[in-house]
Amino acid sequence: MDGFLLDPQIEADTIEIGALGLCRVRLMNDSRFPWLVLVPQRPEVTEIFDLSEEDRDLCFKEITLVSRALKQQTGCDKINIAAFGNMVAQLHIHIIARFRDDPAWPGSAIGLAGGAPYSDDAARAIVEKLSQDISVTL
Amino acid sequence: MDGFLLDPQIEADTIEIGALGLCRVRLMNDSRFPWLVLVPQRPEVTEIFDLSEEDRDLCFKEITLVSRALKQQTGCDKINIAAFGNMVAQLHIHIIARFRDDPAWPGSAIGLAGGAPYSDDAARAIVEKLSQDISVTL
Repeated sequence: MDGFLLDPQIEADTIEIGALGLCRVRLMNDSRFPWLVLVPQRPEVTEIFDLSEEDRDLCFKEITLVSRALKQQTGCDKINIAAFGNMVAQLHIHIIARFRDDPAWPGSAIGLAGGAPYSDDAARAIVEKLSQDISVTL
Repeated sequence: MDGFLLDPQIEADTIEIGALGLCRVRLMNDSRFPWLVLVPQRPEVTEIFDLSEEDRDLCFKEITLVSRALKQQTGCDKINIAAFGNMVAQLHIHIIARFRDDPAWPGSAIGLAGGAPYSDDAARAIVEKLSQDISVTL
């Protein structure tokens, strides 16, 4: 999409699920948390307010859609949403299903060391389930 | 507003700046970071997707407005935006101006122990400046 290239660090840390109208949807490869990352497919954007108004509306709609789907699918206690970007400048939004008995509760899952990647089978299963629930346009 | 009451923990941790169409705007009383908290004035809401569509649109508009104003006012390196709510259930959105030389960079400012409150004079000055920049409707 017009010069957009996924940041290599995001590419290394996550697994592709699909794409919505604006955002690439990826699964964080950390089996401790059901954790999605949305990446608006626009080059050189680091802040949400730097998106055009049209893109911003779409971005917020997709955050809402994905958050709700993740909540419904996991039955989690809380959805955590964050756009930080202190380490990776490319705009990306974390959407994480949190449980009262998860290893970071009630603290932040972001930046918590010690995550184990999914096995290939587990990754395939969760990607398939999520892509159905989110109705991702592949 | 129709049964809305500010959560006592948020009230204790922050200083009132004013209110926009939907959200109360408050300053986190932590002098290490220019840090605002938006609280949609709706009772019993914990997730952004639980807001009505109209309120959600307003919420996202106010997040955009406040983020941009905070960036412009502080000249920070990055704006961090987060809706967690693992400790305080009432929906609230953190908007934090981050600098490469701040005490948490590049980690999360949220949950970082050791914050010192503003002096009364400093709090008054920053609240006045922010309320002008954000054009808060008092």
